[in-house]
Amino acid sequence: MKNAINREIPDFIKGIGKIEPYSGAWTKLKKGWMDEITIPPPNKAKLPHQTKLTATLEEAIKKTNPHDGMTVSFHHHLRNGDLILVAAINILAKLGIKNIMLASSSLNESHSSIMKYLHDGTITRIWTSGLRGDMGQAVSEGALDLPITIHSHGGRVRAIHTGKISLDLTIIAASAADEEGNATGAIGKSAFGSLGYSYIDMRYAKQVIVVTDNLVEYPCYPLSIPQNFVDYVVAVESIGDASKIATGTTRITKSPMDLRIAKLAADVIEHSGLFVPGFSFQVGAGGASLAVAKFIREKMLKKELRGSFLLGGVTSYCVEMLEEGLFRAIFDVQSFDAAVSRSLYENNNHIEIPAALYANPFNCGCMTNKLDIVVLGALEVDVDFNINVITGSGGYIRGASGGHSDTASGAQLTVVVCPSIRGRIATIAKRVETVVTPGETVDVVVTERGICVNPLKPELEENLIKAGLNVRKIEDLQKEVEKIVGKPNVVEYTDKIVGLVEYRDGTVIDVIRQVKKN
Amino acid sequence: MKNAINREIPDFIKGIGKIEPYSGAWTKLKKGWMDEITIPPPNKAKLPHQTKLTATLEEAIKKTNPHDGMTVSFHHHLRNGDLILVAAINILAKLGIKNIMLASSSLNESHSSIMKYLHDGTITRIWTSGLRGDMGQAVSEGALDLPITIHSHGGRVRAIHTGKISLDLTIIAASAADEEGNATGAIGKSAFGSLGYSYIDMRYAKQVIVVTDNLVEYPCYPLSIPQNFVDYVVAVESIGDASKIATGTTRITKSPMDLRIAKLAADVIEHSGLFVPGFSFQVGAGGASLAVAKFIREKMLKKELRGSFLLGGVTSYCVEMLEEGLFRAIFDVQSFDAAVSRSLYENNNHIEIPAALYANPFNCGCMTNKLDIVVLGALEVDVDFNINVITGSGGYIRGASGGHSDTASGAQLTVVVCPSIRGRIATIAKRVETVVTPGETVDVVVTERGICVNPLKPELEENLIKAGLNVRKIEDLQKEVEKIVGKPNVVEYTDKIVGLVEYRDGTVIDVIRQVKKN
Repeated sequence: MKNAINREIPDFIKGIGKIEPYSGAWTKLKKGWMDEITIPPPNKAKLPHQTKLTATLEEAIKKTNPHDGMTVSFHHHLRNGDLILVAAINILAKLGIKNIMLASSSLNESHSSIMKYLHDGTITRIWTSGLRGDMGQAVSEGALDLPITIHSHGGRVRAIHTGKISLDLTIIAASAADEEGNATGAIGKSAFGSLGYSYIDMRYAKQVIVVTDNLVEYPCYPLSIPQNFVDYVVAVESIGDASKIATGTTRITKSPMDLRIAKLAADVIEHSGLFVPGFSFQVGAGGASLAVAKFIREKMLKKELRGSFLLGGVTSYCVEMLEEGLFRAIFDVQSFDAAVSRSLYENNNHIEIPAALYANPFNCGCMTNKLDIVVLGALEVDVDFNINVITGSGGYIRGASGGHSDTASGAQLTVVVCPSIRGRIATIAKRVETVVTPGETVDVVVTERGICVNPLKPELEENLIKAGLNVRKIEDLQKEVEKIVGKPNVVEYTDKIVGLVEYRDGTVIDVIRQVKKN
Repeated sequence: MKNAINREIPDFIKGIGKIEPYSGAWTKLKKGWMDEITIPPPNKAKLPHQTKLTATLEEAIKKTNPHDGMTVSFHHHLRNGDLILVAAINILAKLGIKNIMLASSSLNESHSSIMKYLHDGTITRIWTSGLRGDMGQAVSEGALDLPITIHSHGGRVRAIHTGKISLDLTIIAASAADEEGNATGAIGKSAFGSLGYSYIDMRYAKQVIVVTDNLVEYPCYPLSIPQNFVDYVVAVESIGDASKIATGTTRITKSPMDLRIAKLAADVIEHSGLFVPGFSFQVGAGGASLAVAKFIREKMLKKELRGSFLLGGVTSYCVEMLEEGLFRAIFDVQSFDAAVSRSLYENNNHIEIPAALYANPFNCGCMTNKLDIVVLGALEVDVDFNINVITGSGGYIRGASGGHSDTASGAQLTVVVCPSIRGRIATIAKRVETVVTPGETVDVVVTERGICVNPLKPELEENLIKAGLNVRKIEDLQKEVEKIVGKPNVVEYTDKIVGLVEYRDGTVIDVIRQVKKN
């Protein structure tokens, strides 16, 4: 069958079940009260004054009665510095556990060494926001029998809340914790900031282990994770290297091209009609997007304009703007720089928020629904403004869904920034390989060759033309780029589906097929 | 049938259902993983950038589709200063809603004017921690067909979590809130401190209204209540008078008798073996208990001893001890003095906690389970150390269960303080009228006539005798008191059960019968 954006979707996958096709960005939300059930969180009980401490991570894992077919989850707040996911999966593998569903909030290059477990039946299902490096390649080449599911950060909460992901065990790395499991990422030698992604896991997992390299005197605060959800606590030598958080996608670019695009995007924002006192703002990770904040800051100072809140992946740049008084608050679901931990700990208007509050589509109003302006990156954009942030040229999985579709759906103005060409390959395409964020939620695409406004937003287009910006039809831009780099090579796929791209509401917006190796 | 402490309990009540008898303080906890199911929290959805503001409380209530048989809940953080419960019940009554189950975290004299609705079918069921004044009398005299249920603060969370209380609507008074429903009690003209009791309601109620007399610029923080749980927001003239919080049971006594008992209790604590660096401490409301903190502070300063955390109902005295560095943190589920709001807002080691974390028996370890020493009051104590804090002489309901049984069950040392005689009536009785806290969880009773140690704690008794304290058998004390005031009048009851006293685990520890009017 075809879904609402004309992507071919199966209606059933053996081992997965019925597939609900994407039906529009807000179609399910419009129903208001949901038909979809939620699951009851587990009931537990402990006698007073018992210890939760275990000597090793292996001992803690053994105590949770790991079993074949179990689902285990992790957060990715340490990004490329994480040591705990690999350590835990190695232990489960050593214990002979098979058929594991891995439900990490995201996966990255630091996890490559678990790739072998995709081939020996240890890991047979994956839910994740992103996948990169060797593992992305392996999955794209068909390492698993069942497709992985790519979710957004908000969609992950929904999936756990509704029981689509049913967690047997979550293992939460924390840079400080006490013997009862009160834990945080805000202090300690491995401080990594917000623990926003773990909150839903801790609430729903049948067993919760907190792992720390900094066991502090009771009580550990802030209570990013409170003790009443924690079964076991274990102290280890190191949970990882927090200095590796701010790599790759989370550093402000030095590329002249990206800076030029960022400046253009800031001009778009300035003239959008939404750059007004009390506006709220988020920039995504990667490429030009983070750099937009720099130019927005300059414009705010010049206009003496004060915003409401900054949302999302939080950089040191966000903290500077908070401390300068340019914004009233930061809502921090994920810190993109370990250095922001100090602010998270000290500033009571730098607020750690769970992913549910950040972006879950099915509650009384997540923060992304209150967002005015978001700036996001893209691997590819098509002439319908659909965005691909998951598969690279060649059809391989190498990105992450993250909060892309969540923020695009919620923000009043969604600005996508990308160069029109990357490494001799067109970024503006007739048809993107994989859709993560639907075009109806994207308002404007900013490239070095011009600015394209979604025809759904004629007023915005008018504003930008009036401001003298280089506004162009996206079809024209696509053709111009194609003239320069030529028609793209057609990626060859087999029929096998290796990935489902879930929209935040649980419908399937696209599938990723197995790349045919030459 | 008789329960584990020999109280006569029915096994079934028409309109209520099967009654599970109390089986021992930790019997159900010992099962670890609970058989009892929890209920799924509601799933909701809102489109981005919609308003939640309504013009009046009536409009907000109408929008939630109130209906006959509904359950509506409130918090009692404003104690005797609360205006919102009465206002809301008046609106529901005016709308003609009948057969309401009222599930306030507690009820007090400020709510007396809703008494008329007990007689006209508007309110037909009540769950509450406490009941005082005219309403207590009316219920004791049989105003309702069905018995009310008295729960502990921890037990209330359990009851909501397991669906015994199924909330259709919760109305949360907040001293500050923004248009999305982010709300707190920590700031504003009506600041009342912690919003700890509302957290479970907001999570489970099908509809959530935040009422404030201080609508602030977005975002309102701290996020005591986060927006993703809030359906409607309404600004009113006044939510109440926070200066009335610190009345009656929450002021440190000036009575010489109470001070004498408090001093004795402090001596008991000093020599208990638990007055050591890192000890944790809670004092209950009322009479001598709060005053114990004063003497403990002096002993800590003298010994240069630093404790771990203060728990519970938080007074200005607790805040002083925190700021003096005598304790590392305060966990605040309820502020007993509006003046502590400043500390709650400013000190990041003065931590607002939900009632679930405070005292829910069915999770991975509430704070009461980590408590070393608690000092509690009593209306009556019997020779089995059972405590009555709910019915007064004459058998009338006039007290509150509160955190009494929660803390007694969790603390390593539970000290009950009370005068041996009150107004010519013995406090130390052969048999208390109503048991709220079972004797097996009470370690020592301190009166002006001597100190009685539970025979379950022979080591404690030895320590206190060694310290030269006046340790006596509780049976001897009871007889001595009886000699002075004479045998108590036997209260005459009818067969009708007007109240069920639920132990924190959901079993019934005692029932309250209708007082026979002469």
